[in-house]
Amino acid sequence: MTDLSKMGENEAISRLSRKLQPAPAGVVGIGDDTAVVPGPRAPGAQQILTSDAVIEGRHYFPETDPLRVGRKAVNRVLSDIAAMGGTPSYLLVNVVAPPTCDMDWLDRAYEGMDAATTAFNATILGGDLTPGPLVEFHVFGVGEVPSSGAILRSGACPTDVIMVTGTLGGSLQGKHLDFTPRIEEGQFLRTWATAMMDLSDGLAMDLHRMCMKSGTGALVHLPKLPVDPAVHALENTSLKPWEHILFDGEDYELLFTIPSDCASDFMTAWKEQFELRCAPVGIMTKEAGIIKLLDDDEQETPLTDEMMKDYGLQAFHKDAP
Amino acid sequence: MTDLSKMGENEAISRLSRKLQPAPAGVVGIGDDTAVVPGPRAPGAQQILTSDAVIEGRHYFPETDPLRVGRKAVNRVLSDIAAMGGTPSYLLVNVVAPPTCDMDWLDRAYEGMDAATTAFNATILGGDLTPGPLVEFHVFGVGEVPSSGAILRSGACPTDVIMVTGTLGGSLQGKHLDFTPRIEEGQFLRTWATAMMDLSDGLAMDLHRMCMKSGTGALVHLPKLPVDPAVHALENTSLKPWEHILFDGEDYELLFTIPSDCASDFMTAWKEQFELRCAPVGIMTKEAGIIKLLDDDEQETPLTDEMMKDYGLQAFHKDAP
Repeated sequence: MTDLSKMGENEAISRLSRKLQPAPAGVVGIGDDTAVVPGPRAPGAQQILTSDAVIEGRHYFPETDPLRVGRKAVNRVLSDIAAMGGTPSYLLVNVVAPPTCDMDWLDRAYEGMDAATTAFNATILGGDLTPGPLVEFHVFGVGEVPSSGAILRSGACPTDVIMVTGTLGGSLQGKHLDFTPRIEEGQFLRTWATAMMDLSDGLAMDLHRMCMKSGTGALVHLPKLPVDPAVHALENTSLKPWEHILFDGEDYELLFTIPSDCASDFMTAWKEQFELRCAPVGIMTKEAGIIKLLDDDEQETPLTDEMMKDYGLQAFHKDAP
Repeated sequence: MTDLSKMGENEAISRLSRKLQPAPAGVVGIGDDTAVVPGPRAPGAQQILTSDAVIEGRHYFPETDPLRVGRKAVNRVLSDIAAMGGTPSYLLVNVVAPPTCDMDWLDRAYEGMDAATTAFNATILGGDLTPGPLVEFHVFGVGEVPSSGAILRSGACPTDVIMVTGTLGGSLQGKHLDFTPRIEEGQFLRTWATAMMDLSDGLAMDLHRMCMKSGTGALVHLPKLPVDPAVHALENTSLKPWEHILFDGEDYELLFTIPSDCASDFMTAWKEQFELRCAPVGIMTKEAGIIKLLDDDEQETPLTDEMMKDYGLQAFHKDAP
């Protein structure tokens, strides 16, 4: 075991860099003042830029396998790029770590970051390593999207069908570390979706954000929510499955809207393309910012601010300071 | 005084965002999963990507005016872009701050970041805010450079003249916070310099890095080093001015090389363009990785690893973990 403090910064960076795929031809990677890369691959493409952080004790437990930690750090950023319908290209990573941090631990975190990045033909080009009290990964992602092709949160209209990919809830059982960013699905959705985002803070909060951006409300059909098997495996919970889906967070699935007159064609096209489940879970309504829940008995309950605040099962990951 | 913990994440981000210039037309900024920007402004341009961190107690003292802290965080990244001959365009900022952090302090740090960014027609497009034990700013910068126009560290040849902009040493007196990134100078140098980098860790370490990348050695003429007035103002120092210049660090000036047969024309062109001082301080030599110091008496002393390790006056900022 070698502590980070036993190595100089240069040596540590050099060792960790060897865990990463080398920069592709025509790209200046680690070792200069900045990376230098070509412009977007597709002529006229727009670029997408995003950053996210994964911090010890907040986004993962100290005993978590560092391979999964590194993978999560990269995949959170790739999930944001997926949510725009984009293609990831380059990443930079600022790492903060205590001087006592085991280099083998960092090696393995870099292996996780590299695996997640290369799975989508992207490249980590560099970053920064600074000592600090906790381990942190600040990942910066660059991608591209065809001109005017990005799907924003603001495009939903009343009567649009609300859809989600995959299954939701119970992510703390493991999915919050081991999810797959929905890159191909996001690209496919560019030709269908009116609004899109990824589900990071739970369906309730994220749908509320989409409604606020789109100037819509939403009616959510609770029986239609796709329950992840992890929810059924939960033992010490007094909550209903739909409560886990609305409030757990960290699903990293796509939330999007489809015009109601295209919904049937869309579902056919989706099933031809993907095995991944895709479920309609409600419709957008006219009452801006108001989310209503429709239960088994066709009873409507408004989703109140109090409900939003009272939950937060996995509050350790939520970003409210 | 309002603590960060008294505000929700959304409210805090919204408040801090108001300290920033709005995103220019055609750009999706804060509020979606990612920012969306046009490709490079100049057709065929390459892009440059860089990230850097400024951390409490390491890169600034807790009592430092947060305006200067925010400005430093952005300007360190702009200095890296300058060192490639690039033009900055967009930045993202991940902020980590304790729940007890005063929002007024953060407001002022954002004012500093905004001032530094807009001074060079760049824009901060978003980022992330996460609680943590110390204040940290992780700044990601995107810029552009004409195709094949980036000046790397690796282009120096033996007999090239080694030059630096401005004056060096004693930056802990204030310049480490208040420097100006040499953006216009870096762009001008694209047509002249064979190698370039910014001086962040002291001339000794940075020149050594350039030599290693270029496969050269260097002979530094100590009497020619441009001493910053801050060095003369130092009271409790037993070191010679040239020792401060070689080892203090955080000068954020440009270090570059010019072919010897162009050096005279270059100096004429520089003086026509800039008031900023530019000084030849030595020449590149053939002995790869060997730096020698030439003193007043024409005595040569090799710069040894021990000298590199023994100094580090401003060690609080240096990144060796």
